[in-house]
Amino acid sequence: MKASASAPGKVILVGEHFVVEGSPAIAVAVDVRARATAEAAEGDLVTISSRELGEASFGPGAGGGPLYPVYVAVQEIFKRAGRRAGLRLTIESDIPPGAGMGSSAAVAAAAAAATARLLGLPLSPDEIAQAALAAETIVHGKPSGIDPAVTSYGGAIYFKRGAKPERISADFGRVRLVLADSGIQRSTGALVARVLETKRRHPEVLEPLYKAAANLAEKARSALERGDFATVGELMNINHGMLSALGVSNAKLEELVYAAREAGALGAKITGAGGGGMIVALCWSEDAERVARALSGIAARTIVAPVSEKGATSTLEG
Amino acid sequence: MKASASAPGKVILVGEHFVVEGSPAIAVAVDVRARATAEAAEGDLVTISSRELGEASFGPGAGGGPLYPVYVAVQEIFKRAGRRAGLRLTIESDIPPGAGMGSSAAVAAAAAAATARLLGLPLSPDEIAQAALAAETIVHGKPSGIDPAVTSYGGAIYFKRGAKPERISADFGRVRLVLADSGIQRSTGALVARVLETKRRHPEVLEPLYKAAANLAEKARSALERGDFATVGELMNINHGMLSALGVSNAKLEELVYAAREAGALGAKITGAGGGGMIVALCWSEDAERVARALSGIAARTIVAPVSEKGATSTLEG
Repeated sequence: MKASASAPGKVILVGEHFVVEGSPAIAVAVDVRARATAEAAEGDLVTISSRELGEASFGPGAGGGPLYPVYVAVQEIFKRAGRRAGLRLTIESDIPPGAGMGSSAAVAAAAAAATARLLGLPLSPDEIAQAALAAETIVHGKPSGIDPAVTSYGGAIYFKRGAKPERISADFGRVRLVLADSGIQRSTGALVARVLETKRRHPEVLEPLYKAAANLAEKARSALERGDFATVGELMNINHGMLSALGVSNAKLEELVYAAREAGALGAKITGAGGGGMIVALCWSEDAERVARALSGIAARTIVAPVSEKGATSTLEG
Repeated sequence: MKASASAPGKVILVGEHFVVEGSPAIAVAVDVRARATAEAAEGDLVTISSRELGEASFGPGAGGGPLYPVYVAVQEIFKRAGRRAGLRLTIESDIPPGAGMGSSAAVAAAAAAATARLLGLPLSPDEIAQAALAAETIVHGKPSGIDPAVTSYGGAIYFKRGAKPERISADFGRVRLVLADSGIQRSTGALVARVLETKRRHPEVLEPLYKAAANLAEKARSALERGDFATVGELMNINHGMLSALGVSNAKLEELVYAAREAGALGAKITGAGGGGMIVALCWSEDAERVARALSGIAARTIVAPVSEKGATSTLEG
């Protein structure tokens, strides 16, 4: 018997950086997925293998290594089930790692969902999110919780520090996301610290800007709920300027953003920490390929995907 | 006997667009100048000639044509002097027209200053600014008054709609301005209207942004007064992001802005209406040529100039 599961990646639509200081953000699940399969194995070891990260076995009390966070998510399922089991877990992911797309949370959510399915334990999206959050705590120290929430729920998530993530009721059938990677590596932690330092030095300037960003996220939520994607795109463009004001843009990101807008995107902006990483463009379905073509020559990688209404899902085979 | 005068161009350092709705802005005089010479002539006609705009003669009650605004400035001087005079005025300008550098106000101020000098009428910068403002009213309909103030006073001017422009006490000896022209034509009026329309549709977002911009201009004024150009540059960068949020940037302007920053500018931003036109970079004197070289290959025109501490000045010859 074998259980398989998948979980989507995410992009932040509006509110990154501002969310660190209490403003809301909105993230959406992207239909680029991590997958996990779980099979019962002799003994009580959990063996996890991945093409990229190799293979490691974990017993009770074991820890460390790049696959350990996945084991932490599995352990959460064992706790809920009230028992351990010997397992062979295989994970793979189409989500580019280190690109702000929530790759590690999606892998953890898929592993948790596959394990729970194999053990016959029905899990709510909330419970999968909690297992993925436990894994994220190993990876990120103090994760915001947005990646586990988005990958577990799917769709669009309204998120505010210290509050429970809320699913936004929206129909994304007519739109596509086009993501373009600047190919520039950066440290999210360093960028967050630099923004907070700028805020500390210029509170009179940055505090009203944060207020503007908070109000923008609320308006974007309303626009999503009524399917007004033209307004969502416009608000994304405004939000991009605010991120530029925070100092996290650069020449390459601007080149990508304006190429997407000029090719007909409803809106385009930095997504995630900035300083490198990716931009996201919101497009009508019929315009997405044109926008992607405009980006493909100047981006390190271009992804076209619908919003994934499905979060972490699992099935039992054989 | 011949009087000659010159008056500087201007760039807005911070606050453009936001100034339209009551936030303060700061503009500086740039040492790129318009010049005028005035000689007495028979009769009471004022004949004005320019290499670019040809020649026209104006008597009492005459009006119209591209040189008419200059005559309006001269008329203001006649009013102050309590008499008309026959004049031959020659004007020329190194300030690129239509680039947001206050070319028309500088030409009018130079013409007014030369005329007043020839008539033996001592004028304060305020009085020259009023003559230039009368000319600007012909050119722009409802001018903000910032161009006449900057070209007449020189240095840095703090400006708020409905209030008297104030000269900021600052020493610009250690810095240079590098201006780069995108080569893209645009309509200032259309851009201002579009920004106001965005504000009307998203007041919850734009009003706090305008508040942030107002506070930024106040901080920039303090930084200028204490000679803290690093902070001025940083605030210019933040202000650029705010202008991007207003929707007045584009791919070319961003390319220029980031090229200037990467070449070592203290700050770089759109100056004026955006959508095209120019960017301004604030640089330490020793870095200005390097920044200009980085821009010269990608800009339609690059200008390096100190801030002009002198406003409109005049001398009597022969």
